[in-house]
Amino acid sequence: MKKDGLHYTSIWPLADRQAVEVIDQTRLPHEFSIASIGSVDAMVVAIKTMQVRGAPLIGAAAAYGIALATLEAGKQTDGDAHIRSSAQKLLDSRPTAVNLRWAVDRMLLALQGIAPADRVDTAWHEAAAICAEDVETNHSIAQHGLGVIRLLVESRSAAGNPVSTQHPLNILTHCNAGWLAAVDWGTALAPIYAAHDAGIAVHVWVDETRPRNQGASLTAWELAQHGVPYTVISDNAGGHLMQHGQVDMVIVGADRVTARGDVCNKIGTYLKALAAYDNGVPFYAAVPSPTIDWGMQDGIAEIHIEERHGDEVRLVTGKLVTDQAESGRIATVNILPDGSPVANPAFDVTPARLVTGIITERGLCGPARLEALFHAPA
Amino acid sequence: MKKDGLHYTSIWPLADRQAVEVIDQTRLPHEFSIASIGSVDAMVVAIKTMQVRGAPLIGAAAAYGIALATLEAGKQTDGDAHIRSSAQKLLDSRPTAVNLRWAVDRMLLALQGIAPADRVDTAWHEAAAICAEDVETNHSIAQHGLGVIRLLVESRSAAGNPVSTQHPLNILTHCNAGWLAAVDWGTALAPIYAAHDAGIAVHVWVDETRPRNQGASLTAWELAQHGVPYTVISDNAGGHLMQHGQVDMVIVGADRVTARGDVCNKIGTYLKALAAYDNGVPFYAAVPSPTIDWGMQDGIAEIHIEERHGDEVRLVTGKLVTDQAESGRIATVNILPDGSPVANPAFDVTPARLVTGIITERGLCGPARLEALFHAPA
Repeated sequence: MKKDGLHYTSIWPLADRQAVEVIDQTRLPHEFSIASIGSVDAMVVAIKTMQVRGAPLIGAAAAYGIALATLEAGKQTDGDAHIRSSAQKLLDSRPTAVNLRWAVDRMLLALQGIAPADRVDTAWHEAAAICAEDVETNHSIAQHGLGVIRLLVESRSAAGNPVSTQHPLNILTHCNAGWLAAVDWGTALAPIYAAHDAGIAVHVWVDETRPRNQGASLTAWELAQHGVPYTVISDNAGGHLMQHGQVDMVIVGADRVTARGDVCNKIGTYLKALAAYDNGVPFYAAVPSPTIDWGMQDGIAEIHIEERHGDEVRLVTGKLVTDQAESGRIATVNILPDGSPVANPAFDVTPARLVTGIITERGLCGPARLEALFHAPA
Repeated sequence: MKKDGLHYTSIWPLADRQAVEVIDQTRLPHEFSIASIGSVDAMVVAIKTMQVRGAPLIGAAAAYGIALATLEAGKQTDGDAHIRSSAQKLLDSRPTAVNLRWAVDRMLLALQGIAPADRVDTAWHEAAAICAEDVETNHSIAQHGLGVIRLLVESRSAAGNPVSTQHPLNILTHCNAGWLAAVDWGTALAPIYAAHDAGIAVHVWVDETRPRNQGASLTAWELAQHGVPYTVISDNAGGHLMQHGQVDMVIVGADRVTARGDVCNKIGTYLKALAAYDNGVPFYAAVPSPTIDWGMQDGIAEIHIEERHGDEVRLVTGKLVTDQAESGRIATVNILPDGSPVANPAFDVTPARLVTGIITERGLCGPARLEALFHAPA
């Protein structure tokens, strides 16, 4: 998608294969800064500190992590052992994202039986293929999601409340499942970009998404850069907006979706799904197939939810506005009384019964029809 | 309730009646600072800037605002006109809180037919009476709510999961409806203080409560001062905790409750009520009778929701932790991309169907039984 009129992706390899470059997402929205990642350990840090985040991008980053490991393996006495231990480090960097395991497994499979001399070439090609497929997958999600949006536009017309620039189609999203969370397009935002580019008047309610504020910092930034109208709201506001007919559709991404259609996504998604259900607002998850965990059914019982550091709740980072002299500097403030205990579960699970539909690269389906859509083994 | 072992209330008159003192709630939790308010205009500013906030305290503050107006009226050519215009200014300071109108109306009624020479005395007595009644009312709410808590403790025992210090009764609250929101005790926190003081092991999940963070700053501070165990969570986390059996009860305050039991409270309350309902967690509102608006039935259709300034979402204030040199200074940061549009509805309405019970000074009742409990005129 676009920044200052130029096309960007969120991750790209250097031509000499000595490093991978990413947009450092911990600096947005205040600074657009590119980080160069030249080792497996640096990639693990980038994933852990969320310089790269978002399920599809974590997968792409982990794939390039293995590619970097093949470079390092050439300098080790036991190259295979280095690749195996690198894979484990990458897998341990974020426990919830299923794409991470999917990407690492695919990279290891591609490297199986490859001679050490060819490992680097194979790995960098495979990582690039994973990225290219992610873009293609998300472009398909964009098109299938655009179909859903067109139907909602028709419904609004049929109800005598046609969509126009003054009365746009209002779409609420939580967290950031935009191009910054993927390689390009994004998942939840992909249909929104497609609709905007097709001339449909869309307006996005952007959930701030505490505690890390990915909505306020990343989704708002992405939409602004691409020119899509949006309004930031606190995470608490969505239910009220739905009660008053100000939301036509909710669309979110996912970190993991179970075979029966339970959607694990950023903490707070479940609350929006409840409000959508209570107000008859359709609730969609945009999900590339690597995010589907065919080995799980009951998301609430089975998915291990990552508990992240309390400082994410305690500390808020932004651009200092207090002093004229210091104004504009990035600073961090503590919003809690000293010594306050904090809990910080990072994700929650929206049960399939609250999900109107799942938009995948193969098309749209009800949550119970996922297995049928993909003809997955029983 | 207690701070450093000493008993405090949130507002008190000076003995010479030249001013009213309040705890400046915009400085908490980082600074405990007392503000002296010596004029109606200063009281309007204190209410507007939320140095004083919380429905019951706004009522008490408005009452003392009229008391200050009677002092000023003595120096005006038309004292009655000054009191009338002061009343209007106070009424306009916060549109949602019904206690504000209730307190102003009661003060004006008390002053009706009182000779100018006696107005000051009457007004200061009436304001003090409103405060004393608020304390008494909230003490009754504490006792009735304690009854609810005792029943939940019994349920836990009956279910083979007895309440203990290791496994406390987990109560989730949103925003701040503690003693800082009232004159003393609070509304939602009153039963919690009563249970803690009675030796019941309670633990409070404190919703951060964006955008103004009253949970993170005020509820956490109050509970810590009084010694009640608590954990701060982002507003997004409550549904997940309920799905996993970690919440035994939700209790919130209210800014306005309709005759049929719809509960208007801080934005986001509705989302917690939906999650409580979905998980079989009882949801209570603690409501002193002045908060009940007998003239309204349908809260969603009838209650005007205050839209507050976008800077509340945009800007976050806390204690600077970035630089060693500046560490500890109070500072404000902007978390949004420059120029981001923001919407900031301050309250939402939880429909009565999601409310398990309303705890009033007269006792506990289902939302549909409010009129019967108070024998209100039809």
